[in-house]
Amino acid sequence: MFSKSTIKYIQSLQHKKFRDEYNVFVAEGPKLVTELLLSNDFSVKAVFALQSWVDGLDAAIVASMQPCLTIIKDFELEKIAHYTTANNVVAVFGKRKPVSSISCKNKTTLVLDDIQDPGNFGTIIRTADWFGIENIICSANTVDMYNPKVVQSTMASLGRVNVVYTDILQWLQENKGIKKFAATLNGKPLKEMSSTKECIIIIGNESKGISKDVIESADEKITIPKLGKAESLNAAVAAAIILYAVSN
Amino acid sequence: MFSKSTIKYIQSLQHKKFRDEYNVFVAEGPKLVTELLLSNDFSVKAVFALQSWVDGLDAAIVASMQPCLTIIKDFELEKIAHYTTANNVVAVFGKRKPVSSISCKNKTTLVLDDIQDPGNFGTIIRTADWFGIENIICSANTVDMYNPKVVQSTMASLGRVNVVYTDILQWLQENKGIKKFAATLNGKPLKEMSSTKECIIIIGNESKGISKDVIESADEKITIPKLGKAESLNAAVAAAIILYAVSN
Repeated sequence: MFSKSTIKYIQSLQHKKFRDEYNVFVAEGPKLVTELLLSNDFSVKAVFALQSWVDGLDAAIVASMQPCLTIIKDFELEKIAHYTTANNVVAVFGKRKPVSSISCKNKTTLVLDDIQDPGNFGTIIRTADWFGIENIICSANTVDMYNPKVVQSTMASLGRVNVVYTDILQWLQENKGIKKFAATLNGKPLKEMSSTKECIIIIGNESKGISKDVIESADEKITIPKLGKAESLNAAVAAAIILYAVSN
Repeated sequence: MFSKSTIKYIQSLQHKKFRDEYNVFVAEGPKLVTELLLSNDFSVKAVFALQSWVDGLDAAIVASMQPCLTIIKDFELEKIAHYTTANNVVAVFGKRKPVSSISCKNKTTLVLDDIQDPGNFGTIIRTADWFGIENIICSANTVDMYNPKVVQSTMASLGRVNVVYTDILQWLQENKGIKKFAATLNGKPLKEMSSTKECIIIIGNESKGISKDVIESADEKITIPKLGKAESLNAAVAAAIILYAVSN
């Protein structure tokens, strides 16, 4: 029911270059696709699904797929799906227009310095959404928010958090009045952090941490106290613990 | 420099059946392999590495690989490596003898009810190691601790935390005197939890949560307060926030 060129098109969306060119991204699996459809955060461009799955859906969800729904066979799905948990459906959505400017007033803002692992980034977006964080500011080298693994790990939080890619050093310098905390391995214990709700939390790259210039632009270095022997914490875990500490 | 049967052997270790049969597991990449070698937590059985990488190592690390080191070529490494970040080396280690019984006295113990995602489980082990948790008790259906993705995500914490697979319902009933907290979406806010260092924290399956019987055996249900809109938190993130709250 679909052509070789369609398969090629969907496969091409694994690459940032083509996601940027077509201004779309891919989501897979019943839970994620239906949540994105119902959220109205993104415009649906195409849905490729098994008849057996569509038959069991609420009418409202089926309606939200029209006129973009194509029924395909198992063997066709296999050609475009990348996750074993993602059976039944693969969908293409339009990207959102990036927000041009964000305010840090009266809220906590997350800054990411070169997060590379898509699973980590997706989990950070999901966790930020849990804690009501509105904005995540990313260095230009942070992994693409529309990378398929990022999209899968966000669990539909993707549309509820603004993600801005920029020169974070310059951005931090522009936001002078807001207290900035850098998550490092040699800072003040997290619970002694002089936080208010209005602050900026900086999380670094998985292996290199936060770059020197960026650390220097922070007001305080903070650390999650280590009681055992692990060398470090996963970046998404560190971000989550700090967001919990700031909001409680 | 190595045979087809060696390639087949290493590839077979992607499957639990063969890891159990040979009582070994695979680790990939310079950082993980050298940390496991130096930790002495596991006996090394075989190391397959590129000459260029071995040339740059400390003599002590090279010595720790002997007599198990085989130098291989790039194209050979490609046949046995599963991670793009895992260039340079693939190693086989012997599993540890499982601990027969553990004590929950004067410490925090983590119980996992059917965690399925290997990345989540590895991250939980790494986080437990950071917070000095000695023991993790897992339901029989929890993903195998020697699954290659678990091993990679633990970042060498694997040897420093005891992982016990058992009937957790029975185990919880046997540990009567210790206060048990179940992480759920409808419990008491985490910061109001009546915790002491001596307690048991129960984390549930990624999609189904904690099974009904297990929840009923807990003393208190606890929840990480939600301020935004995400439906849930990642299981490893939830475990990390609770371990932080208990230990601070």
